[in-house]
Amino acid sequence: MRKLTLSMAEQIISAAFAKAEELGLKPLTVAVIDAGGHLTALSRQDGSSILRPQIAQGKAFGAVAVGTGTRWLNANAESRPHFIQALNGVSNGAIVPVPGGVLMKDEDGDVVGAVGITGDTSDNDEAAALAGVAAVGLVADCG
Amino acid sequence: MRKLTLSMAEQIISAAFAKAEELGLKPLTVAVIDAGGHLTALSRQDGSSILRPQIAQGKAFGAVAVGTGTRWLNANAESRPHFIQALNGVSNGAIVPVPGGVLMKDEDGDVVGAVGITGDTSDNDEAAALAGVAAVGLVADCG
Amino acid sequence: MRKLTLSMAEQIISAAFAKAEELGLKPLTVAVIDAGGHLTALSRQDGSSILRPQIAQGKAFGAVAVGTGTRWLNANAESRPHFIQALNGVSNGAIVPVPGGVLMKDEDGDVVGAVGITGDTSDNDEAAALAGVAAVGLVADCG
Amino acid sequence: MRKLTLSMAEQIISAAFAKAEELGLKPLTVAVIDAGGHLTALSRQDGSSILRPQIAQGKAFGAVAVGTGTRWLNANAESRPHFIQALNGVSNGAIVPVPGGVLMKDEDGDVVGAVGITGDTSDNDEAAALAGVAAVGLVADCG
Repeated sequence: MRKLTLSMAEQIISAAFAKAEELGLKPLTVAVIDAGGHLTALSRQDGSSILRPQIAQGKAFGAVAVGTGTRWLNANAESRPHFIQALNGVSNGAIVPVPGGVLMKDEDGDVVGAVGITGDTSDNDEAAALAGVAAVGLVADCG
Repeated sequence: MRKLTLSMAEQIISAAFAKAEELGLKPLTVAVIDAGGHLTALSRQDGSSILRPQIAQGKAFGAVAVGTGTRWLNANAESRPHFIQALNGVSNGAIVPVPGGVLMKDEDGDVVGAVGITGDTSDNDEAAALAGVAAVGLVADCG
Repeated sequence: MRKLTLSMAEQIISAAFAKAEELGLKPLTVAVIDAGGHLTALSRQDGSSILRPQIAQGKAFGAVAVGTGTRWLNANAESRPHFIQALNGVSNGAIVPVPGGVLMKDEDGDVVGAVGITGDTSDNDEAAALAGVAAVGLVADCG
Repeated sequence: MRKLTLSMAEQIISAAFAKAEELGLKPLTVAVIDAGGHLTALSRQDGSSILRPQIAQGKAFGAVAVGTGTRWLNANAESRPHFIQALNGVSNGAIVPVPGGVLMKDEDGDVVGAVGITGDTSDNDEAAALAGVAAVGLVADCG
């Protein structure tokens, strides 16, 4: 089983920022959390607005909370809004159910953690997250 | 980079009230917050109801939280209601996502703060806010 | 019965700031709330730190909450700490039980509102509040 | 007036970790927040326990909330426990009032942000924070 380290989290953030620069994205905030849902590293680029740390963590937490990426939560928000509302109830409002929260697994399928990104469109946030996950050789699950 | 001062906040409130008088609006509450989302000045006109201070602050906070005026939040509330619900989750219910929260930037594009107004229709609240922002020579972003 | 107006609140704030300048106090935040405990006006001087709006309101609210100035709450915090903790429980943590929250009454003894000040020592905060209350001819109750 | 950047926050964290290694400290978590109390960067070293991100942020937030380092809050917790309890009430429990939260100011005395560190003793946490602040040429205020 692979366990998330601070060094891996730093590589994920660097790779996500590099992808964002390549794509010309707006200033991002990136949160990397471990398998227990606890923050390992967060970086907010200059110009990324003040609630972004909570939004990035909310996407990452949503992914580990239900065991898949936040694209699945986003789809459920449309088909079963009461379920997403209930998830926010039981988590004290900790989940942000839009794309950009990507679950990270190792080669055995065990959860290693998740990365959450916010600042551009949800699709672009997710593209940057995927670049981050690829940089450490983990398997990404967008939901 | 310009920093919000109490003197600027007082000018914003005065200009907003002058515009409201010119337009014959109902009693307003005006909140002016700094770039970090913290209240610098608030004035509630006689007859403006008791929850107005929270509503005005919720509009202003919504603007700095996501880096654009609350008209953008209002549009998202219609297209992606679960995203706006999630923003209220991660902010402990601090956001009021309707027009009338206007972001203020300086000439370099840096956020200086926001003004939030409530009491009349959302469009009229916003018109008063725009008069306030113009009075101190800042750039308004309605979202 | 006298009812708090925005004009009165503005006079209270101006007089408190004038007293603070005379005494050479640190930057203050002043909150004026009505008999229902709702904010009428607030001003935070440049350099007054970011939690001051909540502290000033917490002092003012404490005064109207129990019908006397916060000096009484401060004394109770020493003699009956469980009572003050319980007040914060039933008020969702809205009370700051240290001097500087002054109740305002009219000549008939009816509550008109309260002023709460923070930024310097509690005694100096209270001195500025008393100057504010005197400026509008109301009776001050420090507790 | 200097504004906190992500680059500065990264330098602060690196210098704090270097100091911790030099002193042989336990695994630390470092949070760097801006003048508005919002997270700019956070790093949790391998082995630093799961609540450390909240503790580090609570120390940093405590410093900007009242405009001085958390050593001042720690002293107040002993002399006026009801005041510290009230601060946690009005801030929704966001303050950790023990040493290790260091306010950062520029040469003009304006607040730039704060760094909060947890993991070893409070005194050692503070020593690492001071090394971080020194690395970016800001003035440290321990309270």
